[in-house]
Amino acid sequence: MIRINENFTKLKASYLFSDIAKRVAAYASAHPDKPIIRLGIGDVTEPLPPACVSALHAATDEMAARDTFRGYGPEQGYPFLREAIAAHDYAARGCAIEADEIFVSDGAKCDSGNIQEIFGADIRLAIPDPVYPVYVDTNVMAGRTGANIDDRYEGITYLDCTPANRYVPAIPDTPTDLIYLCFPNNPTGAVATRDQLAAWVAYAREHRAIILYDSAYEAFIRDPQIPHSIYEIEGAREVAIEFRSFSKIAGFTGTRCAYTVVPKSLHAYDSAGAPHSVHALWNRRHTTKFNGVAYPIQRAAAAVYSAEGQQQTRALTEFYLGNAKLIRSRLESLGLPCIGGDNAPYIWINTGTDSWAFFDKLLNEAQVVCTPGAGFGKCGEGHVRISAFNSRENVETALDRIAKALAS
Amino acid sequence: MIRINENFTKLKASYLFSDIAKRVAAYASAHPDKPIIRLGIGDVTEPLPPACVSALHAATDEMAARDTFRGYGPEQGYPFLREAIAAHDYAARGCAIEADEIFVSDGAKCDSGNIQEIFGADIRLAIPDPVYPVYVDTNVMAGRTGANIDDRYEGITYLDCTPANRYVPAIPDTPTDLIYLCFPNNPTGAVATRDQLAAWVAYAREHRAIILYDSAYEAFIRDPQIPHSIYEIEGAREVAIEFRSFSKIAGFTGTRCAYTVVPKSLHAYDSAGAPHSVHALWNRRHTTKFNGVAYPIQRAAAAVYSAEGQQQTRALTEFYLGNAKLIRSRLESLGLPCIGGDNAPYIWINTGTDSWAFFDKLLNEAQVVCTPGAGFGKCGEGHVRISAFNSRENVETALDRIAKALAS
Repeated sequence: MIRINENFTKLKASYLFSDIAKRVAAYASAHPDKPIIRLGIGDVTEPLPPACVSALHAATDEMAARDTFRGYGPEQGYPFLREAIAAHDYAARGCAIEADEIFVSDGAKCDSGNIQEIFGADIRLAIPDPVYPVYVDTNVMAGRTGANIDDRYEGITYLDCTPANRYVPAIPDTPTDLIYLCFPNNPTGAVATRDQLAAWVAYAREHRAIILYDSAYEAFIRDPQIPHSIYEIEGAREVAIEFRSFSKIAGFTGTRCAYTVVPKSLHAYDSAGAPHSVHALWNRRHTTKFNGVAYPIQRAAAAVYSAEGQQQTRALTEFYLGNAKLIRSRLESLGLPCIGGDNAPYIWINTGTDSWAFFDKLLNEAQVVCTPGAGFGKCGEGHVRISAFNSRENVETALDRIAKALAS
Repeated sequence: MIRINENFTKLKASYLFSDIAKRVAAYASAHPDKPIIRLGIGDVTEPLPPACVSALHAATDEMAARDTFRGYGPEQGYPFLREAIAAHDYAARGCAIEADEIFVSDGAKCDSGNIQEIFGADIRLAIPDPVYPVYVDTNVMAGRTGANIDDRYEGITYLDCTPANRYVPAIPDTPTDLIYLCFPNNPTGAVATRDQLAAWVAYAREHRAIILYDSAYEAFIRDPQIPHSIYEIEGAREVAIEFRSFSKIAGFTGTRCAYTVVPKSLHAYDSAGAPHSVHALWNRRHTTKFNGVAYPIQRAAAAVYSAEGQQQTRALTEFYLGNAKLIRSRLESLGLPCIGGDNAPYIWINTGTDSWAFFDKLLNEAQVVCTPGAGFGKCGEGHVRISAFNSRENVETALDRIAKALAS
């Protein structure tokens, strides 16, 4: 008799964004005359940059001719893309990352979900709260947690992000082995300073832990003092894996390309204490279960690093940050404490009320979709996330409607 | 201290196709003047069908304009593609498969590697030998096997495919829980008859087992008696998952699109014996760890089902089958017993000699790359796989060179 992976039964009923989609669909179907503005899921709205569009067309033409057709490529990505990433995203910032330490994939969601497979079943997890649900759920599926009690899984050290610590978690006072960090943060928009990251790297080195650093939103950083990569911190090459994505930089949410950096100097240990190369483990996993990103998509991603691509993607993040500034200042003027929006496309609002109730109020009275903080964890209660991904006109309309709804 | 998943240390040193790539690269670098013809890895060589190229261009243009831009799509795939698959690949063959039972993905390798995650750690596996290495390796990584002893992992019931059974394995005389089957087979090119598949479905129903049916090569079937889908067998909806791919039908190895069918009538059981929907489990896994296939790629895949797409992809498989026929007849004329090539793009050659030695002989003396059977398992020893994916000219040249090398 075939048995299920019973760890799946520990998962909370459904994925946050599916819940939201259901409530929004129900509202839309009941009120077809009331146009909804979506500032919930962090999905971009502006078209692909022209440099990426040109590259996609050109690569499509290559696929149409026998002499230039490409079949299976290297699972880790084509050298033209890995080298561009290493040069522009790392060498240019003084980070010593080689092209062959970069694994191109179809999404940071996939990578940050899959990475845990190469580690032991009994490692100790440290995971922020609030958090992108994928970090938690994939560990639940893998059996690294106990039951969910009062909205927290047994076996996880939660890193609370609260108004008191300005949403940057304190370092735990006990050892942990695998630490998830995300800056600029999803959902809060908070950023970590160089000193704060250095303290995490020191902690990881002390305990021979590994930091999983999600910097999918680094392109939104404007404060020159804030690191874009964990590898800007000395010693991080021995303790950190970094996830990046083209989704939010270049509008690739529907085009799918991302990458993960696994330094060759990174080690994990077997039960006898012998070190193993994490790069070799991830390479084995990646080549066994993945077959590379579509060639035309890799060409489109590489176009981000052309001169035009750099200019166009900078304009995109500037545009969304303009929205973010409007959102934050308007909500603050309504008396709601906010963070984020200055170095991130998310604004985290301390509503002080039940977050699903606030979500429902905005949906029903303002026809605006936000994301209830409780969906990101216990510490998210009392907050909602508003995303800056929309047109200027929709953002302005949404803010007017929100102001009116909150005044009523 | 961070610990590794020690199951990875049970894996054999490296992935078969990486080994081959290394030997070929070493030969090519030592003999830059000798052009190599690759009939090893099952990678297509002909360009994308024009219908797919047009669709890719058109979708790229949609991504370039705000009004038609697409961000995140449904993780399971767009309805336009799922519905086309359900209509053309299933309803048209009398199989009752609904569009929402189809999960679009970026590769059958990924899906057939990931599917095991939703099942228990202690289930009993039945896996053919020879076999596509991904089925085995992903279960080793997940800890479902013991050590590799004499080229076999403890804890797997191997389904031997030998000259004696014409490479279609017998049903085990003991119960197993998760059964991997692939027809038309990779690597052997063998096909299973309706009666043979019906016997497997009966076995699975009797033992409440699940069959993982990989039919990535179904488009090469020409014998009208051979089922294209496991769902052509009555009762299969309660016991089978099917994997399909656009890679070999439409030249998508570098374009990446595939799908997996999980019927809603399929169940697996918890330790108390209660049934759980496998569709719900896979949906949870898929939406948590995957973010959908790129929109332009899904449009290209959907174009396969247009009238022109059907004609063009049929012409592609006809072309490769023409190569296959040449390969098989020539090798048989050299006195080598072969199967496959008639309903599959692979020819499985019973060389009767050490398969890596035969590989090296063809590489060194004919500059032709094949795949050594031993790389697919113990029963693959004494065989090599030759792939029909190449130009007619290259196939003819390769066959002349092979004939010469084997005569010397």
